[in-house]
Amino acid sequence: MGLQLYDLAGAEPERRFSPYCWRTKLGLMHKGLPFETIPWRFTDKNAIAFSGQGRVPVLIDGDHVVFDSWTIATYLEETYADRPSLFGGDGGRAVTRFVNAWADTILVGGILRLVVTDIFAHLDEKDRTYFRETREKRLGVTLEAVSVNRETDVPAFRKTLEPIRTMLAAQPYFGGERPAYADYAVFGCFQWARCISSFPLLLKDDPVWAWRDRLLSAFDGFARKALGYPV
Amino acid sequence: MGLQLYDLAGAEPERRFSPYCWRTKLGLMHKGLPFETIPWRFTDKNAIAFSGQGRVPVLIDGDHVVFDSWTIATYLEETYADRPSLFGGDGGRAVTRFVNAWADTILVGGILRLVVTDIFAHLDEKDRTYFRETREKRLGVTLEAVSVNRETDVPAFRKTLEPIRTMLAAQPYFGGERPAYADYAVFGCFQWARCISSFPLLLKDDPVWAWRDRLLSAFDGFARKALGYPV
Repeated sequence: MGLQLYDLAGAEPERRFSPYCWRTKLGLMHKGLPFETIPWRFTDKNAIAFSGQGRVPVLIDGDHVVFDSWTIATYLEETYADRPSLFGGDGGRAVTRFVNAWADTILVGGILRLVVTDIFAHLDEKDRTYFRETREKRLGVTLEAVSVNRETDVPAFRKTLEPIRTMLAAQPYFGGERPAYADYAVFGCFQWARCISSFPLLLKDDPVWAWRDRLLSAFDGFARKALGYPV
Repeated sequence: MGLQLYDLAGAEPERRFSPYCWRTKLGLMHKGLPFETIPWRFTDKNAIAFSGQGRVPVLIDGDHVVFDSWTIATYLEETYADRPSLFGGDGGRAVTRFVNAWADTILVGGILRLVVTDIFAHLDEKDRTYFRETREKRLGVTLEAVSVNRETDVPAFRKTLEPIRTMLAAQPYFGGERPAYADYAVFGCFQWARCISSFPLLLKDDPVWAWRDRLLSAFDGFARKALGYPV
């Protein structure tokens, strides 16, 4: 039997939008490990209580239960060491931690403010109160107020992507000639937006668009086939 | 005979402030390679014409002339492969390229705007016209106008360091348990400011301060001993 992954879903069970779950799914694809996903909603805390905490991704691999996308990535790297590496060695793993942190802060923070009302609109009814309360507390304003100026805010977001463009002038992926976990850590954030929002985060002539497009095509178009918006 | 490095200097020959040269110097220390530095000013183009271009760092290693801090780092890694690794493998090198790009864009750009008048004040007389003209063209305003609001601008700069703080919550260096080239790529930017400006970029209770302090202490306090300001 393959692995099982609890994967955040919207009202439609096939709308899978968690940036962290996307990191894990691409990591599993990279390792060539067969897996099935189990749709999960924010308020399904009981369904993953066996993991000892309340957030996804949660991975079940036989007798092993692993949660937190970074912990899962290092688990996969160590457990399936004979398969393609996610980090390209210990040095790669250490530095990827910074890329992961950059994505968690700059990208998750920046994208959330641009698409938060779109996330809300796609949630299962039972998740809406939970989502609104937790996110409005975190953001300090109503969801609607956060995104109201997104047309004028998005150029500043695109500017924060400049380090990716500088890197892409030298190599096609964070991983060098081939994608690695650092690519998935960043790509997961864009895929989060793409699965939930028709708002164009990236412009077509942006090298970041081309990089994302290469990752959408990876693994026979695994990410491109996901339910979402062609933006 | 050891290696020789052309190293940007101010009016005082011992004031060495190039962020790119600092990357190279720490990389040489990491490899345990003895080297001497040759003070160089922006307008000493003839002195390094043998390298086929006009910027430092320029490294001379016997018959080899290497320029550009990234190219030098990869040269050192390949040529001195039996010494401590700067990247921790090919995966580390690839991902470090992003860290380098992040430092080049977010840190160099952010710090330049905060300390540019201090750089100008420390330059050799012969470099001042060159520096003012090239930097004002790049920035689109006078040097003095760029930095005039730095007291109110610096909190926004400190916020851009959030990815470092997130990473430091998990590990003490970009390189993991020990510093690697990714650390030097970032540290070089802070050392640039420290050598030229008394303006406090970092607050003492910031984990980034503590990380920088560890690097100031590395290699028997090599960077801490440099002529600069204790900020």
